Amino acid sequence: MTAAHGSSEAPKQRIVIVGAGFGGLNAAKGLAGLDIDLTIIDQHNYHLFQPLLYQVATAALSPADIAAPIRGILRYQKNATVLLGKVTGIDLGKRTVQLGDEAIPYDTLIIATGARHSYFGHNEWERVASGLKTIDDATAMRRSILLAFERAENTSDEAERRRLLTFVIIGGGPTGVELAGAIAELARAALARDFRRIDPKTARIILVEAGSRVLATFPEKLSAIAERSLRKLGVELYVGRPVTHIDADGAVVGNERIESRTLIWAAGVTASPAACWLGAQCDRSGRVIVDLELTVSSYPEVFVIGDTAHAEGKAGPLPGVAPVAKQQGAYVAQVIAARISGREPPGPFRYRNYGNLATIGRREAVADLGWAQLWGRAGWLLWSIAHIYFMIGFRRRILVAVEWFWSYLTYQRGARLITDMPAPGA
Amino acid sequence: MTAAHGSSEAPKQRIVIVGAGFGGLNAAKGLAGLDIDLTIIDQHNYHLFQPLLYQVATAALSPADIAAPIRGILRYQKNATVLLGKVTGIDLGKRTVQLGDEAIPYDTLIIATGARHSYFGHNEWERVASGLKTIDDATAMRRSILLAFERAENTSDEAERRRLLTFVIIGGGPTGVELAGAIAELARAALARDFRRIDPKTARIILVEAGSRVLATFPEKLSAIAERSLRKLGVELYVGRPVTHIDADGAVVGNERIESRTLIWAAGVTASPAACWLGAQCDRSGRVIVDLELTVSSYPEVFVIGDTAHAEGKAGPLPGVAPVAKQQGAYVAQVIAARISGREPPGPFRYRNYGNLATIGRREAVADLGWAQLWGRAGWLLWSIAHIYFMIGFRRRILVAVEWFWSYLTYQRGARLITDMPAPGA
Repeated sequence: MTAAHGSSEAPKQRIVIVGAGFGGLNAAKGLAGLDIDLTIIDQHNYHLFQPLLYQVATAALSPADIAAPIRGILRYQKNATVLLGKVTGIDLGKRTVQLGDEAIPYDTLIIATGARHSYFGHNEWERVASGLKTIDDATAMRRSILLAFERAENTSDEAERRRLLTFVIIGGGPTGVELAGAIAELARAALARDFRRIDPKTARIILVEAGSRVLATFPEKLSAIAERSLRKLGVELYVGRPVTHIDADGAVVGNERIESRTLIWAAGVTASPAACWLGAQCDRSGRVIVDLELTVSSYPEVFVIGDTAHAEGKAGPLPGVAPVAKQQGAYVAQVIAARISGREPPGPFRYRNYGNLATIGRREAVADLGWAQLWGRAGWLLWSIAHIYFMIGFRRRILVAVEWFWSYLTYQRGARLITDMPAPGA
Repeated sequence: MTAAHGSSEAPKQRIVIVGAGFGGLNAAKGLAGLDIDLTIIDQHNYHLFQPLLYQVATAALSPADIAAPIRGILRYQKNATVLLGKVTGIDLGKRTVQLGDEAIPYDTLIIATGARHSYFGHNEWERVASGLKTIDDATAMRRSILLAFERAENTSDEAERRRLLTFVIIGGGPTGVELAGAIAELARAALARDFRRIDPKTARIILVEAGSRVLATFPEKLSAIAERSLRKLGVELYVGRPVTHIDADGAVVGNERIESRTLIWAAGVTASPAACWLGAQCDRSGRVIVDLELTVSSYPEVFVIGDTAHAEGKAGPLPGVAPVAKQQGAYVAQVIAARISGREPPGPFRYRNYGNLATIGRREAVADLGWAQLWGRAGWLLWSIAHIYFMIGFRRRILVAVEWFWSYLTYQRGARLITDMPAPGA
């Protein structure tokens, strides 16, 4: 099962990329010019712009605004074949990737399979506190948030109404902060006048962080600014208090029980099971420990990048963020190109940190650029420009810009659809 | 369970509308100024612009482009309460609507619950040949169409590949014609260069119509033009041949068996079960036979409109199309307003037919305006303007216009996402 295009004399190098996120896709693009046989495998047919997923979950954007078909992106890259499917294992000896019943051979393998939620050993929490990694996660979260307001409008039980109008977000990293801000604005602005029996403005939005401050990877000053902005939006902060229990009716945070029907998990991730496939050494989060060229020790033909990899940076392991994955993808393409052409390899991978961004609601963001810090409107402006710029595809940019401009003007949410309802009850 | 807003001396008229499609929503808007207690019930939280649903099913538009939250539309209409839920029955004696466990009282009732697919007694066909009535139908159809191409790319079984690349649309009305044209363009333009092992241009798109021509409600000349345009797009027409059998591997059309993995039902509809609830007289399609004021005989306080109603027009029963529903909704609001104020009622309902439109692919449409007929580019232009104009909400209009302009320029499809995959297999 190899790509059928092209006739060749010498057999081409077969390069297989598993995962078409930021890392895998950038690696594929970096290999564009080469006379190789490139296969990109993903379990979805789209590349997802994950940093904006929370906007789909909070009804501001549509799935198609932040996702683009992988085939479309690689349409003109003639050396690339895209396969839709779920990889279930890798045979390092035979050099094959297991995809359904088929074993796809490789000479060089790039694993960029990303990460999933981790419930720190409490897998039973997953049923009641869902996370946010895929489009389907996002539309499911949108459905539960919007349905909570609908059910609150319909119920005559006051305790249940309070429970329905209480939203608990667990985890104070960028995703948790962005979700809390967006839900607060949804309740206080977009939905404010839409109900007759409940006042959405009375909804409680609670952000829980076990550590001592939100946005722990940012400088302390920006964490403090973010906390102030969140409070201004009406978000209650439970900082320094770990969650000790979660069930369908609420959570226990520190010693306090909070009754809630909508619990959102933004606390932890674990790498995809690539380390198991490889039998490689991994860290606590399941990330494969890679060497300076991002390969797995004793398998120089196997690269691991992005959220799946544990690579050392100047100040400890590199974080699981999009820029790391993108730069690693581009770097790996360079290494492979150098190997094929017999050129000197580019030297060890080095991450260039251009900055960290997190947005709080629709008008503020914090940005740590290393050499400067921005917040408030200035931060938001930088954040908007950066995100629109980095989104793949010109069309996406126009549409997202239109949506945002519209939301900005009107506080409206365009994508407030409850789809795929299991059982539309009263 | 009545709306809590407003204090009143005399009890207000309680008006309940079931269904927020074109009919129900227009009735609600027509009742905006009145000092009444208005409740709109729908099983979805959105109003759907159904005429463009086929564009969601064929990945040209996103669900949120053609749907808007009912609450948002009626936000400033203070006399209106929106309830999300499924009505299960009506008690004509007690004058209540059953919604879950609650009985909602009415003085006046408007039933505008629309229609569903009808398989002409072959309900077992529904599992393999799905129809197109809701957003979830559309995203499911989009998923099966896109997955068929993906699976064709992955399979090495030539017969299965042919089966996967054969699309059978059953029913040659506007929906069937529009779906066939859109799928043909998806295969021949949008996807043309995206695969490496299959050529999407070789896909067979088959439109089956049991009657003697497609678009039977249009003048014969326009049917002929539509058939020519469809053939030009590469659609195979099986006209005058009924489907006699459908299973998961294909269909029997006339005497011919067509192997196909994607069967689409656009052949027939039946009214929602309102007639059963009312115990009223209905026609073969389950539509409630209404009198000249669109009420049910012996229940002048119960109106039935839109696809749920069988109302007589100048040339037989009125068709189940959006303009009929909208005009009936507006009319019923006038009747109710007249009754409340003691004014003279407006006289029997009269449908004004401004024309029928159907589009074939991305550049052609047929339009029957009664006093004129348009086709080709001119028809398409009229169709585009009419649809953008009639879409509810200013924002929707901008976005749809941007999407269309983009598709027109590039032949691309923006919403080619396979979401909610049951089991992502190879």
